[in-house]
Amino acid sequence: MINDLDEGSLLERIFPRLGPANVPVGPGDDAAVIDAPDARTVISIDTLVQDQDFRLEWPSGYRTTGYDVGWKSVAQNLSDINAMGAVPTSLVISLTLPGSTPVAWVEDLADGVAAAIRKLGADRCSVVGGDLGRGDALVVTAAVTGDLEGRFPVLRSGARPGDIVAVAGTLGKAAAGLCLLDSKHPIAEARASLQALANIQSRPEPPLHAGPAAAKAGATAMMDISDGLLRDAARLARASAVSVDLFAAALQDFVEPLGEAAALLGADPMEWVLGGGEDHGLLCTFPAAEALPDGFVAVGAVRESGSAPATLDGAAVQAIGWDHFGG
Amino acid sequence: MINDLDEGSLLERIFPRLGPANVPVGPGDDAAVIDAPDARTVISIDTLVQDQDFRLEWPSGYRTTGYDVGWKSVAQNLSDINAMGAVPTSLVISLTLPGSTPVAWVEDLADGVAAAIRKLGADRCSVVGGDLGRGDALVVTAAVTGDLEGRFPVLRSGARPGDIVAVAGTLGKAAAGLCLLDSKHPIAEARASLQALANIQSRPEPPLHAGPAAAKAGATAMMDISDGLLRDAARLARASAVSVDLFAAALQDFVEPLGEAAALLGADPMEWVLGGGEDHGLLCTFPAAEALPDGFVAVGAVRESGSAPATLDGAAVQAIGWDHFGG
Repeated sequence: MINDLDEGSLLERIFPRLGPANVPVGPGDDAAVIDAPDARTVISIDTLVQDQDFRLEWPSGYRTTGYDVGWKSVAQNLSDINAMGAVPTSLVISLTLPGSTPVAWVEDLADGVAAAIRKLGADRCSVVGGDLGRGDALVVTAAVTGDLEGRFPVLRSGARPGDIVAVAGTLGKAAAGLCLLDSKHPIAEARASLQALANIQSRPEPPLHAGPAAAKAGATAMMDISDGLLRDAARLARASAVSVDLFAAALQDFVEPLGEAAALLGADPMEWVLGGGEDHGLLCTFPAAEALPDGFVAVGAVRESGSAPATLDGAAVQAIGWDHFGG
Repeated sequence: MINDLDEGSLLERIFPRLGPANVPVGPGDDAAVIDAPDARTVISIDTLVQDQDFRLEWPSGYRTTGYDVGWKSVAQNLSDINAMGAVPTSLVISLTLPGSTPVAWVEDLADGVAAAIRKLGADRCSVVGGDLGRGDALVVTAAVTGDLEGRFPVLRSGARPGDIVAVAGTLGKAAAGLCLLDSKHPIAEARASLQALANIQSRPEPPLHAGPAAAKAGATAMMDISDGLLRDAARLARASAVSVDLFAAALQDFVEPLGEAAALLGADPMEWVLGGGEDHGLLCTFPAAEALPDGFVAVGAVRESGSAPATLDGAAVQAIGWDHFGG
């Protein structure tokens, strides 16, 4: 366990697994130095907390691996850069670990970090620094930087009445996966199609090329769908002083792959599509005259601001989605 | 308490206290956009964990305020940028908070963040984003960026035999303050000079102008003294493949102000000077021919690599200082 190692020895176990940092100054000094050729840097920070954002052991019998936690931390951070239309350039990661954490678990986390960067296609990104400390619960915080490559950042506030509303990535799969992991149905014995949903919850796959593609295609507004389509659409609508109307028929393609899990759990798959976060897809608005870039599907339209910021087929829906505090 | 608020409402309490973010895109979108006129960005991350890096209640009766925690998080992060010879440009801060945390405590934390930025003189720095979540223990992680203003970053690895070793800022005061806070002597009844030491532990004051000044003056190596002078000198020495010899006589000016606290606690003040971290002063090496910039005091010399990376008057000393893991 990590209590048997000093900080330097643990870092020596971690950093080789992360691969080289292709930056002017990488890990090992007081701070790193990264290139910012655009003369601007995009930056965000996101945290995963044990028993809040993931369970180490689930009712379904699944045990969250270090690899899962490393992957998920990276994925949710890269997604924030993607949602600005930028390309990720670096990560700094702070780990707070119980002293009893097995060293192999931390090594697995490092492998998950490296794998997520590589497999999600963040070719220009590497881990350039970090911090290690102890605590009673596992907390992983990453800050991520990005490069706009000369483009304007795509904000939440630019949607205009008449724009098309489109999404990239998956919707509802992570929420279905969460319900499966949280159920008493042993996930190890589940069909591969159900395990695939749980995998999206544990290791989400944000569509990293879609953000810059949307920016190039003239997206007027964009954001990461992290708290549920309806809730996030309402946020985009408020930021833009418009209404977003979603079309139920256009969402059927997202509902269909969730049918098996919904039948097993007695759930409504449309609720997962409308209310589920953590897929880290993109919600985007485009001028109606433009063709949607590859990977985007039209799911609604922007209207003049009305009685509700987000509607389904013109009708208000009670916002469902995740908020980190009760309220 | 914060459980009574949703995330958005809590953010509305926090952000106005942080002052305006003078950046292209500030808080409220998926990520912020900051200027990087140098075409490079310096970046680091650091975490404070309750009961590891600070106690909410100390044996001396002191109760750590939100202001203290906000200040300390900012100070230790700004110090890492300082130690590269750069100027801080932005902070992103992630708060993990128990649901029972009073809202006023979090507001006080925001005030401490804003005050540290202002009073430490980080004129170009503002809080540009953050993340809020719940957990059983309080965890504050900040990532900080900096601008090198066209200078080379000053690394740990550039010290050369013959260089002068110098420090800026205070040494041992935070360690003395830690011992006072951790003692049974009621801090509220202590003399002002002792309370001032405790204040340095709770709200360290890194010398933020010294880092860029050292870089301009031709510093060959530099680092933040966060884990103790001897331990950090050994790290700088190893990174530079040299030895650092410290002069006990030159450290007497740092020992003297600790005498009263040492007498009260029966401690050796030189141990605080040599082993105490958290003042976040700077350890720096300069070519012998150069005049030291304002704020720096010569405390040793760089030698060819010898039997020990760091020595005191030529003799090896057992490394004392803080390591976050046992080992």
